Amino acid sequence: MKEKKGHQADRRKFLVGMGVAGAAATLAGPALAASAISCNVRWDHEHELVIIGSGFAGLAAAIQAKRLGAKNVVIYEKMPVFGGNSAYNGGLFAIPNTPLQKQEGVKDSPEIMAADQAKAGRGVADKELLLHVAKNAGDALQMTLDAGAEYFPYLQQLGGHSVPRTYQTTVACGAGITQPLIKECKKLGVRLVNRAKFDSLIFDDKGKVIGAKILEGHYFGRGKEGNPVNVRSERGVLVATGGFARNIGLRSAQDPTLTAEVPSTNPPNATGEAMLELFDVGAVPVHMAYIQTGPWASPDEDGFGYVSNYSIYNFAHSLSIYIKTGRRFMNEIADRKTRSDAQLACRDDDGKPLPPITITSYKHAKEHPTMKKVLKYGVGWKFDSLEEIAKQYNIPLKPLKEQVKEYNGYVKSGVDEQFGKPMEKAKGKFIEGPFVVIRNWPKVHYCQGGAKIDVQARVIDSTTWKPIPGLYAAGEVTGGMHGVSRLGSCSIPDCMVMGMTAAKTMMNA
Amino acid sequence: MKEKKGHQADRRKFLVGMGVAGAAATLAGPALAASAISCNVRWDHEHELVIIGSGFAGLAAAIQAKRLGAKNVVIYEKMPVFGGNSAYNGGLFAIPNTPLQKQEGVKDSPEIMAADQAKAGRGVADKELLLHVAKNAGDALQMTLDAGAEYFPYLQQLGGHSVPRTYQTTVACGAGITQPLIKECKKLGVRLVNRAKFDSLIFDDKGKVIGAKILEGHYFGRGKEGNPVNVRSERGVLVATGGFARNIGLRSAQDPTLTAEVPSTNPPNATGEAMLELFDVGAVPVHMAYIQTGPWASPDEDGFGYVSNYSIYNFAHSLSIYIKTGRRFMNEIADRKTRSDAQLACRDDDGKPLPPITITSYKHAKEHPTMKKVLKYGVGWKFDSLEEIAKQYNIPLKPLKEQVKEYNGYVKSGVDEQFGKPMEKAKGKFIEGPFVVIRNWPKVHYCQGGAKIDVQARVIDSTTWKPIPGLYAAGEVTGGMHGVSRLGSCSIPDCMVMGMTAAKTMMNA
Repeated sequence: MKEKKGHQADRRKFLVGMGVAGAAATLAGPALAASAISCNVRWDHEHELVIIGSGFAGLAAAIQAKRLGAKNVVIYEKMPVFGGNSAYNGGLFAIPNTPLQKQEGVKDSPEIMAADQAKAGRGVADKELLLHVAKNAGDALQMTLDAGAEYFPYLQQLGGHSVPRTYQTTVACGAGITQPLIKECKKLGVRLVNRAKFDSLIFDDKGKVIGAKILEGHYFGRGKEGNPVNVRSERGVLVATGGFARNIGLRSAQDPTLTAEVPSTNPPNATGEAMLELFDVGAVPVHMAYIQTGPWASPDEDGFGYVSNYSIYNFAHSLSIYIKTGRRFMNEIADRKTRSDAQLACRDDDGKPLPPITITSYKHAKEHPTMKKVLKYGVGWKFDSLEEIAKQYNIPLKPLKEQVKEYNGYVKSGVDEQFGKPMEKAKGKFIEGPFVVIRNWPKVHYCQGGAKIDVQARVIDSTTWKPIPGLYAAGEVTGGMHGVSRLGSCSIPDCMVMGMTAAKTMMNA
Repeated sequence: MKEKKGHQADRRKFLVGMGVAGAAATLAGPALAASAISCNVRWDHEHELVIIGSGFAGLAAAIQAKRLGAKNVVIYEKMPVFGGNSAYNGGLFAIPNTPLQKQEGVKDSPEIMAADQAKAGRGVADKELLLHVAKNAGDALQMTLDAGAEYFPYLQQLGGHSVPRTYQTTVACGAGITQPLIKECKKLGVRLVNRAKFDSLIFDDKGKVIGAKILEGHYFGRGKEGNPVNVRSERGVLVATGGFARNIGLRSAQDPTLTAEVPSTNPPNATGEAMLELFDVGAVPVHMAYIQTGPWASPDEDGFGYVSNYSIYNFAHSLSIYIKTGRRFMNEIADRKTRSDAQLACRDDDGKPLPPITITSYKHAKEHPTMKKVLKYGVGWKFDSLEEIAKQYNIPLKPLKEQVKEYNGYVKSGVDEQFGKPMEKAKGKFIEGPFVVIRNWPKVHYCQGGAKIDVQARVIDSTTWKPIPGLYAAGEVTGGMHGVSRLGSCSIPDCMVMGMTAAKTMMNA
């Protein structure tokens, strides 16, 4: 050993051949040089480009790689269905400088969008990554449109965004994007393999990722891990496996309050084991403690549910009420962390959760298709008067009535003197009966933490601070872009753009 | 492969023999079972118990192990001198329920101390670890006293602590503890090896840590990594290597503002590479983004310097002034994060740092020996009047005089109406000339993040959530105990107690 290049170098040499299930390593002693390590991986499959995970990032990468001329692209997905947590996503997609913004007279730019996100990130977001995504979000939108995704013909202004810039799929969920992208992948000849779980990376003797061990025939949550196969990838491996919102150990290690009792919007497979494998091979864990809870979720339904999109759309012209006081307790469109923290502080006299209610005028709520579903599935309720609401939830009536009157004054004046909420989207939308009421309580929604990447989607080595050759990552498995709090509708542009970026880097490497 | 136990299991099998420098692995193919892996590590040294790092945690562990009957204990230290960053520490040691507290009539308990810390941790501190440390801090103090450490005969009340409970070494730095502990180690026959850098862990074929690869003859920062030797440890390996305050890449990956331009109180060797090795073998990275800057540091000197202890002692009866306004801008004994954030917001009109000043009455400052040093080394200055101070620092005089008058009113009433500072320790201590003035600006001081351990100092595996057999960690290399912000004087009890705990666990395993 002449010079130390970081302990990864040693590790990776020994990782050669790891993909060989049950292989035996015979150590011949220190007489032989490290470079003499022999490597006899038996490859079960060989591809040009291997992608792990079939959410926004993986699908966008596959399509981009195909467009750049890749011949043999494969996506491995551990679940029986494709789409990952992205399919469960709310289908909200922030893009600056769009035709819809021009039509609505909204002035925006990638710089303004990135600055809004950096503000929510509280000084520790990666501004270079944010700007890269904002600049390329339009291309990502176009990829989804080309594949057949459909969006409502208006923009929303979500919490923390300084202008309306958010599209939403007409099906009001991420499947409105993943489904068309999956079809597009199939059309382009991308091989999609389900029930195929990523196990570990395979390195060559120079420390470059040349493949992965995949467990084929994996049955998630049913104790059948699957059969290991060694998959060769000529252009390296893209890990696009999402976050760890459902890994109770990992999230509660960061925040002891996020126990198994706290629900999540994510499906059970959002467990983050591929991210752990990245850390094992030397990726930098960044911002692992920044875990986002969604302030628009409801305690009255499982997962992302119907209330989330309903709330996201309606918060701008609604008021949220603390049951104990009958008063507002937050700016209803502040950034997610601010609102989640405010909601979590709504407690009864014993300190137990007392989910606040959000009141919207029926006539405004009905403008969005989610209202019908909220009422239909019994997770939101219609009331004729404030008296009925006060009675139903045991809210002191007098302060409630005064609060509504006060708030309507802010709607009229355009200035929220209580919490400084921007009132543009509430213009003329007074709170008047009949009303629709839902309850809110945060759910674990998004993990800002993950493996550090550069602006080319290359995974950075914690010892050398250079990219780990052949290893790429995109989407929620990465960390650092968003900082302390991710703004709503900024995950789709992140995943789509970084997936596309990874494909470009891999095809040019 | 019948069942998946987490990807670590595979990794560790291949790690067997990693310690063999330049060994060659011949992969015999998938026909042989994993358990057939043979292992021929040639051991250069064999010990009963191996400790990496010679700070508070490592030294306390060594002494504890010896007391429990260990025959062959070794400490490996990468630097030429022993003591690590602990020797540079301020020598402040929080302990609840001490004789000095009884003497001073202070009511305290481990529960109260742990609650103070949990509050500063902002809801994400590990309360079980905090309570364990608080309960055993008295024993740790006793170990240092037995070894000959000397403390001032009074207690300090540091920022965020609800009562005075902090001892300080008479030399006002951590060397006042590490030096006696090093002597004690030698007396007990602990082998102390310097210039010996930890490289990596060695596992047996069951995934248990049985030794480490150490680079002997290491010259830090001089390009000489050293000669690899394989060190066997019968009772496993304790990693007590400290934090990563001087690892610019790692800290700025978490917080982009912590660039190379931000100074640190830590010596250059606080680089955290052993922690990265823990992550490589599957330890859980916890709270990596919580990096503490010290609000008591000075921009007028390097490292921890003289001002830090001076400020820590004097803040309780001083006032800090924003140069631009002549007004206070923080509770001078709020927790560290609150104060650092407030100081970092002190900027000139161009947004450049404008370090605030802290004013103390000379007659009170001179009660602590650090004042002499601060004046002697030109990092603090004596002034006869507020007029002189205002002129020197270009502070508007009128608001400054009004502020001092107001503040003296709080000293009299015992209630700080501006920032809610507890005024008990300021009782009767009016701000009156002549004055001593120092400047403050935060320095990177402590990394709350690191590898997750349990209350027995065992390193937890991110896949199985069980302890990694034979692997222990203590002190700043671990993460999770303190949460978002560590209270001052709580690092010594953490390191000492968890080092002692690790030794007990290892001796009982």
